[in-house]
Amino acid sequence: MSPEIIFDPYTKLYSEASSLMRSSAVRELMSVIGREDVISFGGGLPFTGALPPEDINDVMRSVMEKGMAEAFQYGETEGRDELKRELAVIMGQEGIDADPEHVLVTTGSQQALDLLARILIDSGDDIIIEGPTYLGALAAFRPAGPHMRTIHLDTEGLPVADLERVLDEWSGPAPKFVYVVPNFHNPAGVTMSPERRERLLEVAEERDLLIIEDNPYGLLRFEGKSVPPMASSGSRHVVYLGTLSKIVSPGIRIGWAYGPPPIIDRLATLKQGADLCSSTLNQMFAEEYIRLGYWEKNLDVLKRVYLSRRNAMLSALEKNFPEGSRWTRPEGGLFIWVTLPEFLDTEKMLPLAINQKVAYVPGTAFYADGTGANQMRLNFSYADEELIAEGIKRLGKVIRKEIELYHSLGLDKG
Amino acid sequence: MSPEIIFDPYTKLYSEASSLMRSSAVRELMSVIGREDVISFGGGLPFTGALPPEDINDVMRSVMEKGMAEAFQYGETEGRDELKRELAVIMGQEGIDADPEHVLVTTGSQQALDLLARILIDSGDDIIIEGPTYLGALAAFRPAGPHMRTIHLDTEGLPVADLERVLDEWSGPAPKFVYVVPNFHNPAGVTMSPERRERLLEVAEERDLLIIEDNPYGLLRFEGKSVPPMASSGSRHVVYLGTLSKIVSPGIRIGWAYGPPPIIDRLATLKQGADLCSSTLNQMFAEEYIRLGYWEKNLDVLKRVYLSRRNAMLSALEKNFPEGSRWTRPEGGLFIWVTLPEFLDTEKMLPLAINQKVAYVPGTAFYADGTGANQMRLNFSYADEELIAEGIKRLGKVIRKEIELYHSLGLDKG
Repeated sequence: MSPEIIFDPYTKLYSEASSLMRSSAVRELMSVIGREDVISFGGGLPFTGALPPEDINDVMRSVMEKGMAEAFQYGETEGRDELKRELAVIMGQEGIDADPEHVLVTTGSQQALDLLARILIDSGDDIIIEGPTYLGALAAFRPAGPHMRTIHLDTEGLPVADLERVLDEWSGPAPKFVYVVPNFHNPAGVTMSPERRERLLEVAEERDLLIIEDNPYGLLRFEGKSVPPMASSGSRHVVYLGTLSKIVSPGIRIGWAYGPPPIIDRLATLKQGADLCSSTLNQMFAEEYIRLGYWEKNLDVLKRVYLSRRNAMLSALEKNFPEGSRWTRPEGGLFIWVTLPEFLDTEKMLPLAINQKVAYVPGTAFYADGTGANQMRLNFSYADEELIAEGIKRLGKVIRKEIELYHSLGLDKG
Repeated sequence: MSPEIIFDPYTKLYSEASSLMRSSAVRELMSVIGREDVISFGGGLPFTGALPPEDINDVMRSVMEKGMAEAFQYGETEGRDELKRELAVIMGQEGIDADPEHVLVTTGSQQALDLLARILIDSGDDIIIEGPTYLGALAAFRPAGPHMRTIHLDTEGLPVADLERVLDEWSGPAPKFVYVVPNFHNPAGVTMSPERRERLLEVAEERDLLIIEDNPYGLLRFEGKSVPPMASSGSRHVVYLGTLSKIVSPGIRIGWAYGPPPIIDRLATLKQGADLCSSTLNQMFAEEYIRLGYWEKNLDVLKRVYLSRRNAMLSALEKNFPEGSRWTRPEGGLFIWVTLPEFLDTEKMLPLAINQKVAYVPGTAFYADGTGANQMRLNFSYADEELIAEGIKRLGKVIRKEIELYHSLGLDKG
């Protein structure tokens, strides 16, 4: 890798994607699309450019006043009590009446996924995932060696009837859990309907199934009416994952798991061996940032920025993408999911796109069942409106050219 | 747990110990010794009280100037290039000519232990550990399900001849690695001699054995002549682990692994699923703290403080501990290791000590082979000289009383 790529914060997310992709050619391509001259819709980076320096300085001052020696010392594995209380306040905003004692602070919610996989999955166990699903969840689950059964999403999220059909036909040991991202799905952009959430909770009760409800984007709703998380039901069949990465900052690596005490306890024991504790300095930063009310101020800014960027992307897609393509219209979050005509292959098309200095993540990276070849994930949170317009224009051209080529070769007949 | 215990930074380290101890009575006891009125030699907390606020503020200012949006954003899984260069400088101080490209930044070196266990150990594999060994290493290795073969330490560290005897008699698949803490061992306080390091390197080459060299304390030498780490040989049989926890701050959770690229690459892939990346804010804090030279200034302070506290503990031990006890005389680091008369049991004695408001970690916690009943670990980095004198006096009384009891019952004849 050339030095400018190492410096680029995009790179991580591309290598994240690339480690899951089979073709080494694509993997190499992925490593170059972090370059500054490429308009990238590939990452999952929130917009951190709006954090007011004076707010940050104020929070830092407050942390130092609270206790500098403490901030730079080890903390409890479970997380700071003060922070857990603030996280319960945040969960309260989504309708969860959370007991701070049942919260485990993790090093980003990614760590919670990793720890959950390790306590719940023995090699060869079955788990149920959405298709498409979060890339990082695949990366967290895979080392534990599960068989992953995919239920394909539609515009209302996980079709619970499909899940029930799969469970009806189930033979062998029951699946260890079903993993869902109900709000503004990454990558699919869809939100699970209230009816389906209720039904999934019933199914979980009826069949003693554990739900992992991953909710990084729930508070980033910039349109429509919010839907309570399944964890707000108080069901003992839900482990809820939250994170400050998308509403405060990913650079402080603060996430959490909230759920039944026996699970939280086992996660805490494993976390002890995994990293002893999450950063005390960052935990104190987070608790002061939340306590002083800056998080709500920042959230308002983010929602405004993301709505405007989503709109810019939707209208650019409308203008530039060929007939036969369709995309989701997320009411929050960071991602739009595009489905192109069936004969196209977004993995093969990526080099052409990068040649035109625009990037995305090909759909196959988000599936464990090999589907998604004609799909792509577009991120709208990081590039500004002007870059979005230009990038989607470039991408539209690449797709049209590819379609023309297929036409001329007679390869567009599926 | 009562609220004041949750607030106490000691607690983590006690629960760390307790999770490895079998007796649930002891486990409960461990949870109460974080109380403020107990003089605790049980933790492994470095002294963070000497960090000058103006230095910290200066570093924070420098981080914000360098790039606030960057500090609060995701970073590369492998760690920031700038930080890796600074970590290479630190390794250089111990004689390692490190290529920053082969460094993986981890969330404390604890994470490196966890990731190493996961890539190297399949359930049932053999590994070789020292006896006693670092508690956190046991916690990191155990979930992977290894058979742990213990080589008991003497005053010059790992007796390599004993290791060779064990390897000569080995049957079955070769051990996956040997794990050593060569400098100011936690808990044993001993340092591995240069001759043994050289011989261990030869043995590793001859038998294709991997050495995990864990060196959290190497730069905390306050007496005697420093001994180069085995990693300074450039051997491909060494994975070296470093951390800023003991020389800068544990609260920022910055450690690292340095070693052969194929191992570092596999660790990085697994780290991606484990937490995506370590905190960018903390990494930038660390790189500025090191770059601006504050770390050397702080290291000088720490060495002065620890030397004085070690001396206070040694003279208090001399004055208060009964005949038949012996202890190590560490030339650096944080711990003294005490061996009491054989008939004593430090786990059984702990409740009596806590009654007298003094605490330690019983020896058995540091072994995988059930030995260590008459041993204890004493930390001298956290309590000041006055508290050390008072605490060791209390502890001496407890031990003498226990010996008297055994005498009177005729139980002191081994």
